[in-house]
Amino acid sequence: MNFVSIIMGSKSDYEIMKNCAETLEQFNVQYEMIISSAHRSPERTKTYVKEAEEKGAIVFIAAAGMAAHLAGALASATTKPVIGVPMKGGAMDGMDAMLSTVQMPSGMPVATVALGKAGAINAAYLAIQILAITDKELAIKLKEDRIVKSKAVEVDSKTIEVLI
Amino acid sequence: MNFVSIIMGSKSDYEIMKNCAETLEQFNVQYEMIISSAHRSPERTKTYVKEAEEKGAIVFIAAAGMAAHLAGALASATTKPVIGVPMKGGAMDGMDAMLSTVQMPSGMPVATVALGKAGAINAAYLAIQILAITDKELAIKLKEDRIVKSKAVEVDSKTIEVLI
Amino acid sequence: MNFVSIIMGSKSDYEIMKNCAETLEQFNVQYEMIISSAHRSPERTKTYVKEAEEKGAIVFIAAAGMAAHLAGALASATTKPVIGVPMKGGAMDGMDAMLSTVQMPSGMPVATVALGKAGAINAAYLAIQILAITDKELAIKLKEDRIVKSKAVEVDSKTIEVLI
Amino acid sequence: MNFVSIIMGSKSDYEIMKNCAETLEQFNVQYEMIISSAHRSPERTKTYVKEAEEKGAIVFIAAAGMAAHLAGALASATTKPVIGVPMKGGAMDGMDAMLSTVQMPSGMPVATVALGKAGAINAAYLAIQILAITDKELAIKLKEDRIVKSKAVEVDSKTIEVLI
Amino acid sequence: MNFVSIIMGSKSDYEIMKNCAETLEQFNVQYEMIISSAHRSPERTKTYVKEAEEKGAIVFIAAAGMAAHLAGALASATTKPVIGVPMKGGAMDGMDAMLSTVQMPSGMPVATVALGKAGAINAAYLAIQILAITDKELAIKLKEDRIVKSKAVEVDSKTIEVLI
Amino acid sequence: MNFVSIIMGSKSDYEIMKNCAETLEQFNVQYEMIISSAHRSPERTKTYVKEAEEKGAIVFIAAAGMAAHLAGALASATTKPVIGVPMKGGAMDGMDAMLSTVQMPSGMPVATVALGKAGAINAAYLAIQILAITDKELAIKLKEDRIVKSKAVEVDSKTIEVLI
Amino acid sequence: MNFVSIIMGSKSDYEIMKNCAETLEQFNVQYEMIISSAHRSPERTKTYVKEAEEKGAIVFIAAAGMAAHLAGALASATTKPVIGVPMKGGAMDGMDAMLSTVQMPSGMPVATVALGKAGAINAAYLAIQILAITDKELAIKLKEDRIVKSKAVEVDSKTIEVLI
Amino acid sequence: MNFVSIIMGSKSDYEIMKNCAETLEQFNVQYEMIISSAHRSPERTKTYVKEAEEKGAIVFIAAAGMAAHLAGALASATTKPVIGVPMKGGAMDGMDAMLSTVQMPSGMPVATVALGKAGAINAAYLAIQILAITDKELAIKLKEDRIVKSKAVEVDSKTIEVLI
Repeated sequence: MNFVSIIMGSKSDYEIMKNCAETLEQFNVQYEMIISSAHRSPERTKTYVKEAEEKGAIVFIAAAGMAAHLAGALASATTKPVIGVPMKGGAMDGMDAMLSTVQMPSGMPVATVALGKAGAINAAYLAIQILAITDKELAIKLKEDRIVKSKAVEVDSKTIEVLI
Repeated sequence: MNFVSIIMGSKSDYEIMKNCAETLEQFNVQYEMIISSAHRSPERTKTYVKEAEEKGAIVFIAAAGMAAHLAGALASATTKPVIGVPMKGGAMDGMDAMLSTVQMPSGMPVATVALGKAGAINAAYLAIQILAITDKELAIKLKEDRIVKSKAVEVDSKTIEVLI
Repeated sequence: MNFVSIIMGSKSDYEIMKNCAETLEQFNVQYEMIISSAHRSPERTKTYVKEAEEKGAIVFIAAAGMAAHLAGALASATTKPVIGVPMKGGAMDGMDAMLSTVQMPSGMPVATVALGKAGAINAAYLAIQILAITDKELAIKLKEDRIVKSKAVEVDSKTIEVLI
Repeated sequence: MNFVSIIMGSKSDYEIMKNCAETLEQFNVQYEMIISSAHRSPERTKTYVKEAEEKGAIVFIAAAGMAAHLAGALASATTKPVIGVPMKGGAMDGMDAMLSTVQMPSGMPVATVALGKAGAINAAYLAIQILAITDKELAIKLKEDRIVKSKAVEVDSKTIEVLI
Repeated sequence: MNFVSIIMGSKSDYEIMKNCAETLEQFNVQYEMIISSAHRSPERTKTYVKEAEEKGAIVFIAAAGMAAHLAGALASATTKPVIGVPMKGGAMDGMDAMLSTVQMPSGMPVATVALGKAGAINAAYLAIQILAITDKELAIKLKEDRIVKSKAVEVDSKTIEVLI
Repeated sequence: MNFVSIIMGSKSDYEIMKNCAETLEQFNVQYEMIISSAHRSPERTKTYVKEAEEKGAIVFIAAAGMAAHLAGALASATTKPVIGVPMKGGAMDGMDAMLSTVQMPSGMPVATVALGKAGAINAAYLAIQILAITDKELAIKLKEDRIVKSKAVEVDSKTIEVLI
Repeated sequence: MNFVSIIMGSKSDYEIMKNCAETLEQFNVQYEMIISSAHRSPERTKTYVKEAEEKGAIVFIAAAGMAAHLAGALASATTKPVIGVPMKGGAMDGMDAMLSTVQMPSGMPVATVALGKAGAINAAYLAIQILAITDKELAIKLKEDRIVKSKAVEVDSKTIEVLI
Repeated sequence: MNFVSIIMGSKSDYEIMKNCAETLEQFNVQYEMIISSAHRSPERTKTYVKEAEEKGAIVFIAAAGMAAHLAGALASATTKPVIGVPMKGGAMDGMDAMLSTVQMPSGMPVATVALGKAGAINAAYLAIQILAITDKELAIKLKEDRIVKSKAVEVDSKTIEVLI
């Protein structure tokens, strides 16, 4: 059974990362969500990655703040794609987490997305896009979602066009 | 025929992005590499994306500097995964390209990697990881590459251990 | 009929951008205001620009946050002047939107103004200044506005001079 | 006689700003170029702006570095559009000049373009776009220039497509 | 009659700058406080500086936010010492105002102090230190103030030493 | 009697630094906590360091904000290890305090930890790690604490695993 | 005998700070120049400040890089005006030295000038402006210098006006 | 046998980190120096830490650039003090490595020192200070070193005092 694995470094990341889970649910994509820390529970993190991979994890999503090493730790423990979501709340409006996530050395990529909520949602979308490469139904849903989003812009626009 | 598509916004990005192409070649991954600009040739960019997708492009890699919109423009034109490589040389040591690439709105992810050469190489690795989900041979090569990299660390270490 | 076109990337930008519309109204400058996204509705954006230009749009004002590509997308789709208003709320206190808007490549300028509300108002002023080149009445109004603003400084000063 | 006025704060800005002049020349747009400082020659700056306006200056382009006040000083002295080009070389890779130029208060816009050479060229393009509103020949040239730029992308692309 | 002149760019700066006035009052230093803008009322600013100098202004204190040109405009209009207080509220937590104030070109210094309230108070202290060069009474008060501040540290320390 | 000395530059730092004291208490590590300023009470700071050292201070922890010189002043006054905790609240989200604390010249190290609360706690942990080099009981407690922290991650994870 | 005291934290600052000395010489202002470090020679620094004050030092100029504490250390040791010159070469293009110098707490001002060479020259100018309050000859020289600088702008302008 | 362990993430860090080794040699402190990467050789890193600890490693020094996770990985694998040296060369003049090193979560401190060479030397000094807690000879050497450094300032000062 193929699924997406979401790992967050701390319970405080849940409020943001539930947006990631909800997006996967909208597309009926199976996922697992756990808390595991690169620093506080490195063995659990490593063991989990191996087990999840064996169970069918196709893509990993890691969310962490501050010196956000979680995504990098996953990237080092698996050759499956790892998506990193930097959390705000540390230094410089989340730039600590952003740079700690994205500036990975050669050969160990982390697919980094936007800070905070937009990033949580986009991590899900990116995972879905990866799964959709071999899942035609999902690929169709992604295209339909684009049409929905495009139409939502038009509806939103109507609400302000009458205001002026 | 499945392949990776590399698009760069300007000829000046080639010196960095050839590292991306060389990495794909090391793994015998097919790719196409063109120059197309989000701003100077928007139609070419859009048309190319559609054609490349039809020809079998599975993943897109976009490299751009300054107000780096190229990856975002691709992300808007396809539902295939798009990897963004921010180039240095604009403002704040490439932070203009980094933020322009990674801070995408909900539903339009760009998988952003490190600035410059490390990012060019990691874009290739990320694309290979995505292809390896359904290509077992590639998955094995990725695991072998990890062993090679790990051993190279040991060899490097020997060279400095004797210096002191 | 000549007019100014205001485009914002998201409904959430309206609260700031209504200050732009109100400034144009103060000078009796015709304008149109719509929502359209560079990423979620690229076709709508492009089609709108062409139609607006044909209807008489002289200047475009684009407001967007995060990886703010909207102004750049307009700049690529028209040779009319495009004014960009970066929105706060993404990363680094709006520096993501600022750099994504201003750091455009050669030949594709975006006339960037301040972050947030001051920028929304100044986008209107800049559009008015451009229209005033060939509209003497508007040019006189701009000069009168300067006198009003200068006198308001004196009035404000009186209120604090008595406090000390 | 309509013309564009280029003012730079220091002789050291010439090397960058000659790209601005050359761009105007390519479009056969008349211009004047002088050095005047917001701080070292404030009277000269103010007097020049008034005289240039009387002689037919339609748009002002101001280039300055560090605490770049020149564009703001012009914006305060005229109601004609003022374009600001921030120079690199001060602090934080030119962010001092960028923020000093763009963060103008309500009612006093400066149309800010990119840092350094790209900005120097784009200041010229923006001025040309403003003049082209009422100059059809110039409007046609701008559109032709887009086609040239778009084709140059294709030519550039050929040079790298054969390399791989 | 010697006095310190406090000029702020906007009424909204008063809440912070009253701390500057109160500090001068604590030392019985005469001062004048007005609002005048570098951009909205440049003539008023320039005229005021000349008149204030003739009336006996010894030091000028200028407070402004965003592209904070006020202190630089004063520095250009007088050879008396000018102290600049950058206000928060623009971009990057006040770094726009800080860099616009401090990064002055050769020959036109602005004595820049900290952002916001600490800066408002320190501008007063710096003005007092300058006046104290030739005012022995004031010099003694400054030394007494140091002793008071040093003792306050000890008192504060007592309050936390008992908490643990 | 060996102990850890905590010095903070201002009473306002107490709310954060009490987390440092509480962490030391959890490990039954003796400590002293005072307020002393690098600038307002330099003599007190210097005298205290000498006296504390004679009384048995093994490690110093210094907390300060803005141009945070306190840790550096301690580092200059003692050859015992000095740990610096940068406080938020100045400029750029605490980057002023961070850089003022960490960027010490050769030969005068300050062991800098994270901004704010996490840093306050980590300063205590770092001090405990240093003491634990020669205190086996403390070394065991540190290892037990790791197990506790690792288990807490598992417990936290359970609470979110049931939410989805 | 009144004089200006220049203190730099390291021999490597001399290349920049000699511009400060040369500026003082141009105005025939007496000065003393020494190296003393806030961290490596705190006693020397403190003793020197006291002795210099007794010998007639009116203003202190301190130049330092990285976690630049020197100006703050002087500000704490004297109630004479202290001017701080942040040096480049540490982190973020000198922002470490800038923030360490300018962000002083209430009651302990450092009059901060621009980074590097412009700051070295402006520190001299600021000192001269302070001395000129009670030295009419110096005040006249400052005004003459402004005229010279203003004329130099015109001469510079001639050189580029002929180039185009 | 007690010793200091220096680990660097890449061979390219050696040129900077040899300054760390040389400083330890000056104090006759035993050390070991290896290359091991948090990402490329995570097992080697972890195994080495355990073995080094058993052999007598008292303090660990970790040097890494970009998303510098090495120090954090060590901090997670040992309860011995870990000192982190951020390397320049990634993004924002080394701020990526700085923030990735220092912004560690509660309970997992990394004692972070300055960027680059100064940091490499200070990591050694900090390690020596920690060892000196229980090594009186080393403590005396540290105090002598301070005297040497202080005298070097005086010697340096003489060389510039004669230049002016």
